[in-house]
Amino acid sequence: MARIVQKFGGTSVADLDCIRNVARRVKTEVDAGHEVAVVVSAMSGATNQLVDWASDIGSLHDAREYDTVVATGEQVTVGLLAIALQNIGIDARSWLGWQIPIRSDNVHGAARIDSIDGWAIHDRLKNGQVAVIAGFQGIGPDSRITTFGRGGSDTSAVAVAAALQADRCDIYTDVEGVFTTDPRIAPKAKKLSRITFEEMLEMASSGAKVLQTRSVAMAMRHNVNLQVRSSFNDITGTLVVNEDSVVEQETISGIAYSPDEAKITIIGLPDKPGIAAGVFGALADQQVNVDMIVQSASSATKKTDISFSVGRDDLKKAVDIINKIETDLEFESVDASPNVAKISVVGTAMRTQPGVAKTMFETLASKGVNMHVISTSEIKISVLIDSEYTELAVRSLHTAYGLDNDS
Amino acid sequence: MARIVQKFGGTSVADLDCIRNVARRVKTEVDAGHEVAVVVSAMSGATNQLVDWASDIGSLHDAREYDTVVATGEQVTVGLLAIALQNIGIDARSWLGWQIPIRSDNVHGAARIDSIDGWAIHDRLKNGQVAVIAGFQGIGPDSRITTFGRGGSDTSAVAVAAALQADRCDIYTDVEGVFTTDPRIAPKAKKLSRITFEEMLEMASSGAKVLQTRSVAMAMRHNVNLQVRSSFNDITGTLVVNEDSVVEQETISGIAYSPDEAKITIIGLPDKPGIAAGVFGALADQQVNVDMIVQSASSATKKTDISFSVGRDDLKKAVDIINKIETDLEFESVDASPNVAKISVVGTAMRTQPGVAKTMFETLASKGVNMHVISTSEIKISVLIDSEYTELAVRSLHTAYGLDNDS
Repeated sequence: MARIVQKFGGTSVADLDCIRNVARRVKTEVDAGHEVAVVVSAMSGATNQLVDWASDIGSLHDAREYDTVVATGEQVTVGLLAIALQNIGIDARSWLGWQIPIRSDNVHGAARIDSIDGWAIHDRLKNGQVAVIAGFQGIGPDSRITTFGRGGSDTSAVAVAAALQADRCDIYTDVEGVFTTDPRIAPKAKKLSRITFEEMLEMASSGAKVLQTRSVAMAMRHNVNLQVRSSFNDITGTLVVNEDSVVEQETISGIAYSPDEAKITIIGLPDKPGIAAGVFGALADQQVNVDMIVQSASSATKKTDISFSVGRDDLKKAVDIINKIETDLEFESVDASPNVAKISVVGTAMRTQPGVAKTMFETLASKGVNMHVISTSEIKISVLIDSEYTELAVRSLHTAYGLDNDS
Repeated sequence: MARIVQKFGGTSVADLDCIRNVARRVKTEVDAGHEVAVVVSAMSGATNQLVDWASDIGSLHDAREYDTVVATGEQVTVGLLAIALQNIGIDARSWLGWQIPIRSDNVHGAARIDSIDGWAIHDRLKNGQVAVIAGFQGIGPDSRITTFGRGGSDTSAVAVAAALQADRCDIYTDVEGVFTTDPRIAPKAKKLSRITFEEMLEMASSGAKVLQTRSVAMAMRHNVNLQVRSSFNDITGTLVVNEDSVVEQETISGIAYSPDEAKITIIGLPDKPGIAAGVFGALADQQVNVDMIVQSASSATKKTDISFSVGRDDLKKAVDIINKIETDLEFESVDASPNVAKISVVGTAMRTQPGVAKTMFETLASKGVNMHVISTSEIKISVLIDSEYTELAVRSLHTAYGLDNDS
């Protein structure tokens, strides 16, 4: 007997039939003798409707009221799923964030979980009752409803799994697991049976959308065994686990890409201390998130160029900010490229196996793909390339690292 | 400066424009220097959708989960109205039933309010903040969400007004007030400027749908001054007040009708003690609500007939129940009329002015309307007639009691 947390996203509870299907999946685990807590999102589309209303009613935005409105989506789903479970003979009750309670800070709309009191649920699980828990929501220090931001239900599920000391946290989604890359652009992509937390983190922050970065970080911190699997079939998904648990280690676990990047190059900056701080301080002050940075200095002219990437949506804002500080910085010109993509190869084995970067650079060069910016971490190499090469680059690297599915 | 509770129903908050309109009505009272608490229903249609989902998901019905689902309707409205108010410069915050808290018993789906802790709201009203309160919902003894049944938002508003010792509770609706009868069938119906609680109670329980019976009874008990008024214009509505406050007293305040009645006559019952108890006990055991009862005894045959009315929906069920107990009761036959209506004339002045019943009976007789059953209370006379005479009877009585609008 194990204690399992199951998490179902919006597409898995899109309508009453889907909710009944979820109920049957829960029943399977209960029938197998397991204790089950289920975390659910809002019916797909519901949250968008609620967000639209809260935005359209007026331009002034009170995040506490926004949370009050938006949290109703999950409240509807938990009630309906509890009824659906009872109708197939499973004892179940719904739990809202404030009822458990899931305590959070008061950063409404993007709150962080402080603590979960799992005792009431723990006792009921012991007695065979299924806990149906509203994802995405908690209660703030002032007893108002908080929400955790988009994808927050993943975080709820992991936090609940940690609080209940669950043996496993299964994230049901519309894909069968974590793939070596996006199967839509690389048909030979393979499903991974296991991936480490760190790799999953790098994949998530490099554009793979299967799990939210925050929930992976939390699972790693609390050592929660995650499984990503499909809510539409019974195939085993991908386990996200400790590095120790991975026996057979491929060189590279996956290739992630983020298509909506933009590159800015500031040309002819004076090469003196404090220049980078001036540029990136100004951007950070205006909430522009900078990802990759490279600086090239010329000793002859005492001038330097700085290139960096931002989300494409932030490009105009970033250029405006830099132009405003031109007098302070005394640079020559700014060059903005809206059409770049970030390609990342990820794998913990990189630490011990040399030559990973060489394979990447040679592969891209052989296809005529120019790299604008390169950045590396212990288990990841990312490059910025022109967007039009995205699919070609992903497929070529997938083959070069031996990831192609043989079948 | 007064303290006012305003209640807006589903049609008044049907969409974002309606909600903005409600915000402007609240602002008018705030600008006049009043302290304002607003109680709102769900956007019209929202509750039906939620009820449908909760019913369709499975035939087993957990009223606690039903309440969890259905209460989201009001939660959405309070958040949106709070934002709308802030956008026109009014300090406001939303309050859910569990946040105030509005404590109720645990009869989910039809809970009764036990107590309201008004202190947190009282303090904020004093500081000029508008309280936007979710109607229809409370929190039960086990910290689960309860709802008060259809029309429960009226009850919420009256209970909040009592708890906050409000000077007035304004019920905004889609009619301009309480009329002497239904203007749709009697175009000469007049809006009443005042009506007593008792009259309003009799009107409500006799088919006038403008206020829920329960909310009127609560207002009478706590002496809350009610006003029924339109949310679509600024015309003064109808005040529902203590009898002492009504100076000019008409003979009759109004004529109510309830079109969906049915009549059952049990013929040839033995005239002995316990017979009525046998009939109505059996019906009550099966939750059939009996309204008017008349028994006529014949001393010659030692037999009696009993006629009574039930809601038309209950007719078949009631006849079945009676046929089942035929052997015990030893009656001769049962006669069922599905097409009868109840017409009631209501007025506190009846107590002191004789001849009210005579006027009613003469008027109906002069139009050839046969009365099947008659029942009276201190301030009401009700008769059961064939449904096809409903409009004619209502209009004739309206004229006979001098209620017709002269304009």
